[in-house]
Amino acid sequence: AGATLAAPAIAQESPTITWRMASSFPKSLDTIYGSGEDVATRVKEATDGKFTIQVFAAGEIVPGLQAMDAATDGTVECANTVGYYSWGKDPAFACGADLPFTFSARSKAAYNYYGGGIDTYNEFLATKGLISFPAGNTGAQMGGWYRKEIKSLDDMKGLKMRISGLAGRVVEKLGVVPQQIAGGDIYPSLEKGTIDAAEWVGPYDDEKLGFQKVAPFYYYPGFWEGGPTVGVFINLEKWNALPDTYKSLLRTACQAADSSTLAEYDFKNPTALKNLVASGAQLRPFPEDVMTAAFDASRQVYAELSAQNPAFKKQWDAQQQFMNDWYLYQQTAEYTFDTMMMIQQRNGKL
Amino acid sequence: AGATLAAPAIAQESPTITWRMASSFPKSLDTIYGSGEDVATRVKEATDGKFTIQVFAAGEIVPGLQAMDAATDGTVECANTVGYYSWGKDPAFACGADLPFTFSARSKAAYNYYGGGIDTYNEFLATKGLISFPAGNTGAQMGGWYRKEIKSLDDMKGLKMRISGLAGRVVEKLGVVPQQIAGGDIYPSLEKGTIDAAEWVGPYDDEKLGFQKVAPFYYYPGFWEGGPTVGVFINLEKWNALPDTYKSLLRTACQAADSSTLAEYDFKNPTALKNLVASGAQLRPFPEDVMTAAFDASRQVYAELSAQNPAFKKQWDAQQQFMNDWYLYQQTAEYTFDTMMMIQQRNGKL
Repeated sequence: AGATLAAPAIAQESPTITWRMASSFPKSLDTIYGSGEDVATRVKEATDGKFTIQVFAAGEIVPGLQAMDAATDGTVECANTVGYYSWGKDPAFACGADLPFTFSARSKAAYNYYGGGIDTYNEFLATKGLISFPAGNTGAQMGGWYRKEIKSLDDMKGLKMRISGLAGRVVEKLGVVPQQIAGGDIYPSLEKGTIDAAEWVGPYDDEKLGFQKVAPFYYYPGFWEGGPTVGVFINLEKWNALPDTYKSLLRTACQAADSSTLAEYDFKNPTALKNLVASGAQLRPFPEDVMTAAFDASRQVYAELSAQNPAFKKQWDAQQQFMNDWYLYQQTAEYTFDTMMMIQQRNGKL
Repeated sequence: AGATLAAPAIAQESPTITWRMASSFPKSLDTIYGSGEDVATRVKEATDGKFTIQVFAAGEIVPGLQAMDAATDGTVECANTVGYYSWGKDPAFACGADLPFTFSARSKAAYNYYGGGIDTYNEFLATKGLISFPAGNTGAQMGGWYRKEIKSLDDMKGLKMRISGLAGRVVEKLGVVPQQIAGGDIYPSLEKGTIDAAEWVGPYDDEKLGFQKVAPFYYYPGFWEGGPTVGVFINLEKWNALPDTYKSLLRTACQAADSSTLAEYDFKNPTALKNLVASGAQLRPFPEDVMTAAFDASRQVYAELSAQNPAFKKQWDAQQQFMNDWYLYQQTAEYTFDTMMMIQQRNGKL
């Protein structure tokens, strides 16, 4: 008496579990919202529905920008969001998502999965009661829509631009006046001239909002998001309570979704960009002096944040080391192969 | 009487299954051999060992180049190999692996997962009793090791080079004399001068073999392998007999391994390349006339093969369409972001 019988091991390994996932994204952003659905589908199929994750779009349980909080306080078991949305609470949240002028999607994966990126980020997140795994990437984003052409750094000064988070802090140093505006309000603000410019995502998402009609100059690259990671952020207690089988499956599903979301953007963006140009978007690279000044500004911001915040500094230091190795290496086979293929594309020989 | 009772659904969904996987790779190639182990580990962990895939290195059950045959004839349930090893049996096998001057690893993923690449390849493989899912990628490989410097296309003429498969057929048109030599025999052949050059993989794998001591000129890019896919090739009857749960899990595990293997190479190659240069490798880009002639030769080969082989033609046509879209698109945000980061790396500002 007093002793309880252990349940059979097989039953412990496959309990029926239902989680709720709060997404930061509306269903209309089908690619990035879809990263959460992708994870849920993979987990459900592999367990014959015994481990189910119900995904809720932004606003269904909590507003999109509160998804992280909902996972932290246990309102939901997990969130599908981007760490930099929480940078105002702690800049170290941004490090697992994207810092301006750092990784491409591909080098980000190398850093995350083999360079200790996931573990370093989770050391920080554990102090907030969370654990996270990458589950999506948009690739390098575009630099946004501008009502007037940007011919040099001078044209950025005083520009009222919809740009959020840490990127706003970087471009502020160039004289840009960052504006926080929700997705649905960007188009009328550009139309009225309340703002001069706005960044959103990339061609596939931007096309839906029709910005080319009111701010036709479409700049690249979005140097503040070379390869932003969308993550599944899990309440740490809920994670710890999962059986090992479901922990392993969920990590594998997240990693598959991480790569699959990028592949989906990469497949859809090329067609969307052609459509945008056909309907009036005027493609422009940022002038060199804008790029150089923005790069320098980003390093000033990192120095400031590192001086104030050890969790930020630890992650930033780790990123710098691999970044240097990667961008030296990429100059050999990868870059020359890509360059050759682009030349042949321009020559109509592919 | 005569009617059998259906087994409980739950038992059908989680049967105990043990498969054998024949790898084309020795354990010493830990990254690429590891792609098979990675899939097996993910599947085993998520099923608490009920679905187990035992991985056998090249030579343990069959020689490395016979792994595909072993899966076809049912000696093993599946193989971990690269499709182009079987191109001599049917050139269409190469299309799911890599064709010279086609995709980077990243655009390959977009083509495979969203551009119909996997399905198109599996239509062909079904005629051979197989089904395959991508489960690894090396990234753009290097162009190999040369005893003498290559200053122009003339220096390629008559060059005895260890290079296999379809790539050999392409460089033959440049006057190269392709040689089929097993991995372990390459070093002594270069040392004695029996061959003038040899391609292997990339810095991480090449470093183990020490080629820089006998053929110090290390060229890039390996234009015949911009993003080769390593696949899990499954006997179609064995695949069809799996429960849906295991089918889904295996596909997810393969997709995670596809991205993870690339991330591992991307993390390890930069350090290996620095080591190689420190120990005498002399890095060189291929001269422009070599690249252009090789590109043109590749298109001649595809025209020849398309005229003879409808299964090849169907895949090649599908690849061309997305390739054109991708390399146009990549010229915007992705390429300019990467270029900026490489400039900053050279300037010591990362």
